[in-house]
Amino acid sequence: MKRIVILGATGSIGTQTLDVARRLPERLRIVGLSARHNEELLRRQAHEFDVPPAGLECGEEADLVRLARLDGADAVVVAVAGAVGIRATLAALEAGKDVALATKEVLVAAGELVMAAARTNGVRVLPIDSEHSAVFQCVQGSPADSVEKVWLTASGGPFREWGRDRMAAAMPADALNHPTWPAMGRKITIDSATLMNKGLETIEARWLFDLPMERIGIVIHPQSVIHSLVVFHDGSVLAQLGLPDMRLPIEYALLHPERVDAGLPRLDIARLGTPLTFDPPDEARFPCLALARRAAQSGGTMPAVLNAANEAAVGLFLEEKITFPAIPEWIERAMDAHAPQPRPTLTQILNADAWARRQVTQDF
Amino acid sequence: MKRIVILGATGSIGTQTLDVARRLPERLRIVGLSARHNEELLRRQAHEFDVPPAGLECGEEADLVRLARLDGADAVVVAVAGAVGIRATLAALEAGKDVALATKEVLVAAGELVMAAARTNGVRVLPIDSEHSAVFQCVQGSPADSVEKVWLTASGGPFREWGRDRMAAAMPADALNHPTWPAMGRKITIDSATLMNKGLETIEARWLFDLPMERIGIVIHPQSVIHSLVVFHDGSVLAQLGLPDMRLPIEYALLHPERVDAGLPRLDIARLGTPLTFDPPDEARFPCLALARRAAQSGGTMPAVLNAANEAAVGLFLEEKITFPAIPEWIERAMDAHAPQPRPTLTQILNADAWARRQVTQDF
Repeated sequence: MKRIVILGATGSIGTQTLDVARRLPERLRIVGLSARHNEELLRRQAHEFDVPPAGLECGEEADLVRLARLDGADAVVVAVAGAVGIRATLAALEAGKDVALATKEVLVAAGELVMAAARTNGVRVLPIDSEHSAVFQCVQGSPADSVEKVWLTASGGPFREWGRDRMAAAMPADALNHPTWPAMGRKITIDSATLMNKGLETIEARWLFDLPMERIGIVIHPQSVIHSLVVFHDGSVLAQLGLPDMRLPIEYALLHPERVDAGLPRLDIARLGTPLTFDPPDEARFPCLALARRAAQSGGTMPAVLNAANEAAVGLFLEEKITFPAIPEWIERAMDAHAPQPRPTLTQILNADAWARRQVTQDF
Repeated sequence: MKRIVILGATGSIGTQTLDVARRLPERLRIVGLSARHNEELLRRQAHEFDVPPAGLECGEEADLVRLARLDGADAVVVAVAGAVGIRATLAALEAGKDVALATKEVLVAAGELVMAAARTNGVRVLPIDSEHSAVFQCVQGSPADSVEKVWLTASGGPFREWGRDRMAAAMPADALNHPTWPAMGRKITIDSATLMNKGLETIEARWLFDLPMERIGIVIHPQSVIHSLVVFHDGSVLAQLGLPDMRLPIEYALLHPERVDAGLPRLDIARLGTPLTFDPPDEARFPCLALARRAAQSGGTMPAVLNAANEAAVGLFLEEKITFPAIPEWIERAMDAHAPQPRPTLTQILNADAWARRQVTQDF
């Protein structure tokens, strides 16, 4: 029986984590839940899973760091947006708890700090994310140093086949129609359209699997059946496949290395009904990929700037204040103006994040 | 440094095993070699790999059992055709050596005996075969009881898209043109055309991975990029991909779980140039699949009869004495006439094999 805290319990990952726990009552016990806005749903969740008041944090002032350190919890699911996710992740790791991580900015902005905290405390950062879970599953049976390359698959997003002119005139509604993964949030759906989502994932993969950026590739696979692939030093390639259902990576992160039937729907490979295709991404039409690579290679506070500038620029695009192609332009401008600090502290990371947001939004 | 004996050194798997050893001189040392016909090549191999005379067996009377037990050898590659492979495999396992197994009939005809010998002696049977190696690689990181289903991929063979009438008139030359795997032997190429190859592989998989037949599926995947897939109890699917190059499964069988760069060519997933397709096999056009399933379910000596009757019938087809659709008919006739003996001894298996061959060939 594993005792779980969920930070961000009322969001998409939070509610799906609870569904996994509902399906595996003998294996998972929910001992803590947090929500920022939806207090009513949080109360219902707490009632259903019998979470005591000491395990609840609610509202804008929710003390996630307290919950991340909750006595008796084995693992903390971090599924909150933003910088508070970094603090909570560090707190959980320092308290000796495994972190099942859904919040992208944690590793993008603070990967070096976070992975060092995991190592120091002898605990793990387990990915909740279809691509990184795929890689994590593929590397299980091989020695740690046997990975030659990781291929993260990308659906290619809604503009995969759009020309430059059409992309230049894209409106938020065009981007918000994601082809394969249902019910994603607005921000991540725009990131999927710019492919920044994949750029951020390469930075996460860099930390999770301790690989240099040049050994992390992206391949466009519009059917989203293969969730990622690993090439080993012998030339063998392993891939993980599945339906687009986040409950599977959630379950794997919580029960790893065990594989228990939670009654999730199965992929039937003989009845896919569609051929699987793989193509290199068009870096010219999707400049966010090169920006992410550049940020990771600059290191230090630069990935935090990339991430924050992207969030700010996506916000402006959603408000229809900038065009779709202006998103990477604003990010690049912020990065050009930033001198990265190497081996940053959390405070330096958060300062860089705030600075980058101001750089993008100050003129609007 | 692993010390290796190769039974069948001058054949396709044997020479490819030597190529792997040539590429990994720090890891693999050849200590024994056998050949039945090509003495000249064997002498050259012995010279190149510095194998002493005591490690050589040559000719029709080659004592493979002696070589399988060779003092100081860690693993024996069994890549000889026919029943002598069963004897040699059992001898190697009983002498405490791992067996890297390429000879199909060993597990098809004597799977129960062979796996029991491996268990009793605390050694392993490692597959040299792209499909079983794929499964073996996929199951590495998960607990032993977590496999829900195995999907063996099949190219579909040269008659994949042929109608029944055209198949009825097929000549050996039509079948001997295999679409994806180059340079296979004549017998295995016909097995690929009837899909009996895949039927035999399901029986092998049944023993290697200790699964009931109904949890081993076949999926037609003409591109032969994915070599097989495993569905786990949580619904996750892992697959192994690679170029059609037997040296990779050979290397994995010999170095498992390590993955060392032997300079083998790499699969570049982003530049496949072809979509990957998956379809259920047409059991009506390929009755060998049902015959294999029936033989495995009958158990005992029946799979030996299936295998031997198939070899005899394929021989008759290659001699143009029977038609292509008559191959499964002759196998079925032999199976119908056989009362399988449960838990057979090696002698009973060999008798059933000889009996089945006579059943098929006696009228010709």
